[in-house]
Amino acid sequence: MSEALLVKNIGLLQTPEGKAPLRGAAQGRNRKYRNAAVLVENGVICAVTENGVLPDCPAGADVVDAGGRLVTPGLVDAHTHLVFGGWRQHEIPLKLAGAGYLDILAAGGGILSSVDATRAATEDELYEKSFGFLDELFAQGVTTVEAKSGYGLDTKNEIKQLTVIRRLRETHRADVIPTFLGAHAVPREYLGRADEYVALLCRETLPAVAWDGLAEYCDVFCEKGAFDVAQSRRVLTTALYHGMKPKLHVDEIEEIGGTALAKELRAASAEHLAVTGGAGMEALAAAGAVAVLLPGTSFYLNKGFANARGMIEHNIPVAVATDFNPGSCPSLNIGLCMTLAYLKYRMTPEEILTSVTLNAACAVGRGEVSGSVEAGKRGALVVWDAPDVETLCYRFGSNLAKTVITP
Amino acid sequence: MSEALLVKNIGLLQTPEGKAPLRGAAQGRNRKYRNAAVLVENGVICAVTENGVLPDCPAGADVVDAGGRLVTPGLVDAHTHLVFGGWRQHEIPLKLAGAGYLDILAAGGGILSSVDATRAATEDELYEKSFGFLDELFAQGVTTVEAKSGYGLDTKNEIKQLTVIRRLRETHRADVIPTFLGAHAVPREYLGRADEYVALLCRETLPAVAWDGLAEYCDVFCEKGAFDVAQSRRVLTTALYHGMKPKLHVDEIEEIGGTALAKELRAASAEHLAVTGGAGMEALAAAGAVAVLLPGTSFYLNKGFANARGMIEHNIPVAVATDFNPGSCPSLNIGLCMTLAYLKYRMTPEEILTSVTLNAACAVGRGEVSGSVEAGKRGALVVWDAPDVETLCYRFGSNLAKTVITP
Repeated sequence: MSEALLVKNIGLLQTPEGKAPLRGAAQGRNRKYRNAAVLVENGVICAVTENGVLPDCPAGADVVDAGGRLVTPGLVDAHTHLVFGGWRQHEIPLKLAGAGYLDILAAGGGILSSVDATRAATEDELYEKSFGFLDELFAQGVTTVEAKSGYGLDTKNEIKQLTVIRRLRETHRADVIPTFLGAHAVPREYLGRADEYVALLCRETLPAVAWDGLAEYCDVFCEKGAFDVAQSRRVLTTALYHGMKPKLHVDEIEEIGGTALAKELRAASAEHLAVTGGAGMEALAAAGAVAVLLPGTSFYLNKGFANARGMIEHNIPVAVATDFNPGSCPSLNIGLCMTLAYLKYRMTPEEILTSVTLNAACAVGRGEVSGSVEAGKRGALVVWDAPDVETLCYRFGSNLAKTVITP
Repeated sequence: MSEALLVKNIGLLQTPEGKAPLRGAAQGRNRKYRNAAVLVENGVICAVTENGVLPDCPAGADVVDAGGRLVTPGLVDAHTHLVFGGWRQHEIPLKLAGAGYLDILAAGGGILSSVDATRAATEDELYEKSFGFLDELFAQGVTTVEAKSGYGLDTKNEIKQLTVIRRLRETHRADVIPTFLGAHAVPREYLGRADEYVALLCRETLPAVAWDGLAEYCDVFCEKGAFDVAQSRRVLTTALYHGMKPKLHVDEIEEIGGTALAKELRAASAEHLAVTGGAGMEALAAAGAVAVLLPGTSFYLNKGFANARGMIEHNIPVAVATDFNPGSCPSLNIGLCMTLAYLKYRMTPEEILTSVTLNAACAVGRGEVSGSVEAGKRGALVVWDAPDVETLCYRFGSNLAKTVITP
């Protein structure tokens, strides 16, 4: 990127403001600049103007003419399982025949088949495949992406996934945030011995991940059939000791106390929350965690949607993410998640914009540098082939990102 | 296109077979060729081979190497409102506030606002806009598209829309089928006087459309609040007199007898059918009409989904289409409709492929030439970045069409 870039002739620049997650009514307040321009120097936003005024611009700056269109911050996808081997389309006939999660697992499908395929894949194969996914997200305006491990489920293969994520981070234009999710499921070789697997994670895998500096966050799938609260606590406190910040998959299927654990550990985020009720919301509000909601998963599993309006009323900052993964949400379409947030969560377009920019950035520790268009933040912007944010929620299934700008 | 084209190295060629709509169990039977090739000469399929055998191929033929991927017939979108002015994203805040159809209409929104915008647009403006939509469909593998008028609602503006559709047909690579839908809504100037509007359509508009040969089909929105059965009958019998084949929008909101009218008039298709019950299905089965189901509309309106399984059990051939329009389904994503057909209609991938190829082609009078890969049919094929049809239903929100081939 050249030293200076002027984005001019912006019909509407719409953005949340600040560096901290927005909650309650503030989540629905966006700053709107009409007839605006943005100057980026050395990758950092240094001026935002409106009403036809142009910033003082260095000679020789590159210019992007937005043609009167909408500009927003680059989007942030705060929850993906970007790196995996294989696919699981062959589960469709089983699902149509009424097979449940355990039936599919018994037929060789389910998450453990993704683990097999991920273990069998080389690092280079995983890198090429996930680089393509990152390209697809980026083309939709996503400039920051969280990526979780969790299909290796042993030290060697978790490290392999996280190494792929490091390579993505080093080579792709998107900002990629690595999360260790070794406690995603109990691997086949530890079936019925979850405590022993947790001990392995704490004794061997977490220290190895920390030694190589491969993860900023540690996430745990705290759910019936995965890891209980005590096991989740053990993994996350060990991760904290090694300098990783805690995240939690909670309340996707059943409430088993994950929200209280999020509060206890001051987790950065609690994710899924499809079945969270009033007490869970109170815990989350007290935790200060960002609620990362995943409407594509509820859609693809034909299940209930999270109570997003309740969370906003409880002053919990809400983010919306894709949950891209080969089992429960094989979709990279963040725009469709925005439409689902409108149709199923009854969120307003302003709330939705905040949920896929600033609040999502805060969920992955990037609130200081991403998620809004303000002086001092990273120059990640999207010019949309649309006049307003309503249109992004409305024209579902079309990619309206026209130009994606990153440092 | 050059005279001969060989598509080789096809991992799986999957297609329905025949020229008539497939119903019951036959809808779910696709022909599958492994390690296949297709030879197209002068735009017509002249050979299909499998098991590594190549057809006798003229020297100098163009070659497309499918790289072991899936190939299917070009898709057919049998129900679109492709030509309209404006958009209606501004209805989102009203809808979130709980406004119904009539509230939105009173606030200047709803279908009549699309009519205003369409009347205000020039023919060239409408042509450019809808050409872009057609490009977006084509890029997803849609090589045949039905396009309805119905936002003019007077003779001059209905003719303007149909003239745009004719220009699309003449200039785009997709096959475009024109349908006259003057009886889409009662225009503002005839509010409360639907019979007079119907009389205008029969006396003036239909003859003018027929005189210019602008429509193959005539469709009517037979629904409470639109046109009753007697009015629908009057429009469609007049259309039949003028050589247009009948279609019907029925049972989107309420059953008012449209399916019986479809049977009486031997309509080519009955469309929407979201609330059709057992008696309606029996009428449809007797009618021989194709049921054109529109899952994107049910999704976007947060309403119930058509009983597709019941229709297949009643031996009704089922097609699935986008219903692209600015009010109830502002989406061109036919792949997402395929995913909805899997998730919400519980159709199998094979049934879904038939529903967006052969059965859809039959709904628009193209069963003889499109909708399957067989010798004698038009050489419209799609190479997918996928190994099988399951993957098309599974990876929702990604466009997996790699190469779209048409004569």
